[in-house]
Amino acid sequence: MDLKQYVSEVSDWPKPGVNFKDITTIMDNGEAFGYATDQIVEYAKNRDVDLIVGPEARGFIIGCPVAYSMGIGFVPVRKEGKLPREVERYEYDLEYGTNVLTMHKDAIKLGQRVLITDDLLATGGTVEATIKIVEKLGGIVVGLAFIIELKYLNGIDKLKDYDVMRLISYDE
Amino acid sequence: MDLKQYVSEVSDWPKPGVNFKDITTIMDNGEAFGYATDQIVEYAKNRDVDLIVGPEARGFIIGCPVAYSMGIGFVPVRKEGKLPREVERYEYDLEYGTNVLTMHKDAIKLGQRVLITDDLLATGGTVEATIKIVEKLGGIVVGLAFIIELKYLNGIDKLKDYDVMRLISYDE
Repeated sequence: MDLKQYVSEVSDWPKPGVNFKDITTIMDNGEAFGYATDQIVEYAKNRDVDLIVGPEARGFIIGCPVAYSMGIGFVPVRKEGKLPREVERYEYDLEYGTNVLTMHKDAIKLGQRVLITDDLLATGGTVEATIKIVEKLGGIVVGLAFIIELKYLNGIDKLKDYDVMRLISYDE
Repeated sequence: MDLKQYVSEVSDWPKPGVNFKDITTIMDNGEAFGYATDQIVEYAKNRDVDLIVGPEARGFIIGCPVAYSMGIGFVPVRKEGKLPREVERYEYDLEYGTNVLTMHKDAIKLGQRVLITDDLLATGGTVEATIKIVEKLGGIVVGLAFIIELKYLNGIDKLKDYDVMRLISYDE
């Protein structure tokens, strides 16, 4: 299946000059959604994964069906103030200002093997923050799976120590 | 399976006097997550569902695996400014101020049978807004599925014309 044909490209969104890649048109198509999920499950099966971790909100969309299909749990990474119990937090820089991501401290047990999922690998800031939290809590990041990689933003440079899979790549 | 034992109750969150029901401890347990998903799939199977719709962000956590298991699509309902293409919007009142939810206009075709999923039925404002948008776009709401119903908040009063299922109820 050529998954790329299900992506909607939106010019000048969220700001002028950006050609946004919208995955909702993969998700609202049962065949494309199933195919994308199954491809990541196939990748994960060889990596002895205990737990799927995904950042809000689009990381939930792909991570939850992958977890369900594998019969394992899903742990959300959320913005500060969204999780009700004790959290581990990680602050990182954005183009303007900073962002904070959090995860429940008891969500990962020491030595658990974690696959991190998200819809998009762009500059890599979100996934890098997610990795830091997982490792701080004693998890082992055994893979990173994305629906789309925007190669021209070089997010992969932040992820040299990790195994990365993506379903679709854009060179420009 | 007694799913209620997997819910974490958090006192005085997000504000004093509220006993928050945290579903992340259902989700991070593969057996509980699978059981919750399968129960909603069983309910949906009898209702000839074409599409799952869920509001961000916790509506994605349960709706996406249900859609995947049924081989159908998932459509996200998001806060204003989060969806890149043309949206239908619905504004509704909160305790203080208002909230706006949006859905892509092309996400639902006329006459499609929709199951709406969310983690929690509280006062019912979010699900009511979601119903309004689905119906405005020509969808038929054939069911509403929640992991938890807080009966004492009477959200069900807003949903008299709809079939509602919930996995867990709290009377107080």
